[in-house]
Amino acid sequence: MKQSQLFTKTKKESPADEVSLNAELLIKAGFINKEMAGVYSYLPLGLLVVKKIENIIREEMDAIGGQEVTLTALQEKSTWEPTDQWSDDKVDVWFKTKLKNDTELGLAVTHEAAITKMMTSFIQSYRDLPKYVYQFQTKFRNEARAKSGIMRCREFVMKDLYSFCKDEEEHNLFYEKSKEAYKNIFKRAGIGHLTYITFASGGMFSKFSHEFQTITSTGEDTIYVDSDKGIAINKEVYNDEVLTSLGIKKEGLVENKAVEVGNIFTLGTRFSDALGLKYKTETGEEKPVFMGSYGIGPGRLMGTVVEVLSDDKGIIWPESIAPFKVHLLMLGGDENVVKGAEELYNKLTQKGIEVLFDDRTDMSAGEKFADADLIGIPHRVVVSKRSLADGGFEVKKRTETSGKVMSFEELIGLLETKN
Amino acid sequence: MKQSQLFTKTKKESPADEVSLNAELLIKAGFINKEMAGVYSYLPLGLLVVKKIENIIREEMDAIGGQEVTLTALQEKSTWEPTDQWSDDKVDVWFKTKLKNDTELGLAVTHEAAITKMMTSFIQSYRDLPKYVYQFQTKFRNEARAKSGIMRCREFVMKDLYSFCKDEEEHNLFYEKSKEAYKNIFKRAGIGHLTYITFASGGMFSKFSHEFQTITSTGEDTIYVDSDKGIAINKEVYNDEVLTSLGIKKEGLVENKAVEVGNIFTLGTRFSDALGLKYKTETGEEKPVFMGSYGIGPGRLMGTVVEVLSDDKGIIWPESIAPFKVHLLMLGGDENVVKGAEELYNKLTQKGIEVLFDDRTDMSAGEKFADADLIGIPHRVVVSKRSLADGGFEVKKRTETSGKVMSFEELIGLLETKN
Repeated sequence: MKQSQLFTKTKKESPADEVSLNAELLIKAGFINKEMAGVYSYLPLGLLVVKKIENIIREEMDAIGGQEVTLTALQEKSTWEPTDQWSDDKVDVWFKTKLKNDTELGLAVTHEAAITKMMTSFIQSYRDLPKYVYQFQTKFRNEARAKSGIMRCREFVMKDLYSFCKDEEEHNLFYEKSKEAYKNIFKRAGIGHLTYITFASGGMFSKFSHEFQTITSTGEDTIYVDSDKGIAINKEVYNDEVLTSLGIKKEGLVENKAVEVGNIFTLGTRFSDALGLKYKTETGEEKPVFMGSYGIGPGRLMGTVVEVLSDDKGIIWPESIAPFKVHLLMLGGDENVVKGAEELYNKLTQKGIEVLFDDRTDMSAGEKFADADLIGIPHRVVVSKRSLADGGFEVKKRTETSGKVMSFEELIGLLETKN
Repeated sequence: MKQSQLFTKTKKESPADEVSLNAELLIKAGFINKEMAGVYSYLPLGLLVVKKIENIIREEMDAIGGQEVTLTALQEKSTWEPTDQWSDDKVDVWFKTKLKNDTELGLAVTHEAAITKMMTSFIQSYRDLPKYVYQFQTKFRNEARAKSGIMRCREFVMKDLYSFCKDEEEHNLFYEKSKEAYKNIFKRAGIGHLTYITFASGGMFSKFSHEFQTITSTGEDTIYVDSDKGIAINKEVYNDEVLTSLGIKKEGLVENKAVEVGNIFTLGTRFSDALGLKYKTETGEEKPVFMGSYGIGPGRLMGTVVEVLSDDKGIIWPESIAPFKVHLLMLGGDENVVKGAEELYNKLTQKGIEVLFDDRTDMSAGEKFADADLIGIPHRVVVSKRSLADGGFEVKKRTETSGKVMSFEELIGLLETKN
């Protein structure tokens, strides 16, 4: 894409009303736009990132048998009353609204009850199990405070998968598979080395659950990490009994601040009991379906990457989720430079390489370099009089401090290497 | 995909609470699930269709310079007051809700005001124009009645594009391009032959607009079609003055019922004036940006296809938006049939051909044929003892009444032909 066509612009000033690093950088670089506290629009660069994250998640969910759907935000009282989740005293983040005839509706905070109710149409027999159903869908949560940028929003997309199994044994097999799928997701998104599967409280759903926590000094949670075993314990359940049950010794644990980037819950039969999701066994016995739920917020994951991988100049995107692979900078209006840059842009895009081409003619070299660092695309390629005189293009990774001049063939060799 | 794994099932009975053909067929065939009147979830087959429709629309919007974003459903009063669209007296389909601190919010009915406000951050100079920005985003409309299935929903995804131009002349160039893009969309989605660009009232935005109307006896609108010119006039603006201005004679016009599948509006400077979206011209003069808006509902388009292309046995999907290209039916449990069907499934999927494989062992041939007709995948391929004895697979298009036996090579030849 030509940057002269892109409608967004970087901002020199940090937004005055943001305290989180992720919102500050993403707004300055033109990835998101703040509508109000905790409510952000995704601009073209931001949408490219979030779609890549969603595709990674989708591939991993499909690989463990997930089937994709989209449920609705508008929810009826009757769906959430049987599980005692309708009252604002029980679930305190509902946005409520009304139909013209005064029927009260809620905007889905989550979808456990809605999907359990729906699945009663499709699950009757042991032959219908197991099933795994997921969606990327907008949740609404009426948070009292929203100061963490895209990490904690009042409106945000969540990938939520729900598993429906015959019994705990069948459930446990899938639950273990989901752990591996989640590890793959964080690894592929570039934060695997900082992310630990963490033993945590079950919240409103079950006694215990597993969180995926990414270490960052700005995190809201405190975890105790056993780096040998690659696991952690959330402070909220950190006690001798839990340590013993996990076979972990206090001595090896290191306290860290962290942010939760995903979580998986065993729901058991709480929802299927309440909403009548039953099946007939091989012997004709009627049993409740055994359920689990598995969440990741693509926006929160994007915000976490920004928090943990940026530097003082801007964002540093991992190649797997970067909006483009190459940021091509044309410096100066020299005829050969313009021609060289245009040719390179055409050649790279013809090879299927995603390029943001800074073809703007009203920007200085310094402004273009600053924008490239702020936006954070993995490979910066400069075409200038000097680079051409030196025999090609100056190529620098976002993580490197200085570049080197390469021929077209060398550049292609670099870009086509799997990182 | 193996049908034994698909969690949805077809239903024999029509839903008792649906009066529209689209909802009846889509629910029976397992494409959608009704949450409440006017609120439908998309199940795996339905999501496949809607994603294909969205991709067609996306390609056509990108081809005319569109840049994709996602704005938010939650909207502040202050965004909609300047254009006098906040009050329920002026816009009567708002769902309103509240933050914890009692601040009133609305769920976006449309996004003209929101995007105009946002663009004030990015448009300052004539050099920033023109720009075209679009999204696929969920709208909420508090309709008093909702009886048209997925044709008129209380919650639905809309593709809305907004154009930002220097003046009417620049706008008109894009407006004409958008007409062609819209024609391409309906043609590619399989209803081009029934869809007419229709001169219509401008509603709340402008004096006149253009609708795209698809002829169907169940349509809510009445249009007068000039089939020679390939255009139509909506009854609401059908008068001598309009006829004269369009150079159309009454005699050639045929009255038809039709459903609106898209619309394009010239907004002019109504929103930019109210919300302060101005730019500096080459001579330093300050002028309001000249705007247009361009909508299509992918769900409504899907519903329209069902309404106009179904028969008494079920849906007939055009190949371009069908959930799968081939419905492969394995009939009977004979060892060679099972082996032949599995092999064919593997070979076709390896070639990148999308196949729904009815591998279910607890269904009769009659039930499988009925399901195939109801679901409406373009090519039905049967593997049975008889087809194998006859030298291959029985292949029938959904639109044909009888099939013929083909070898694997003949089948591939047929499937790889562009339709």
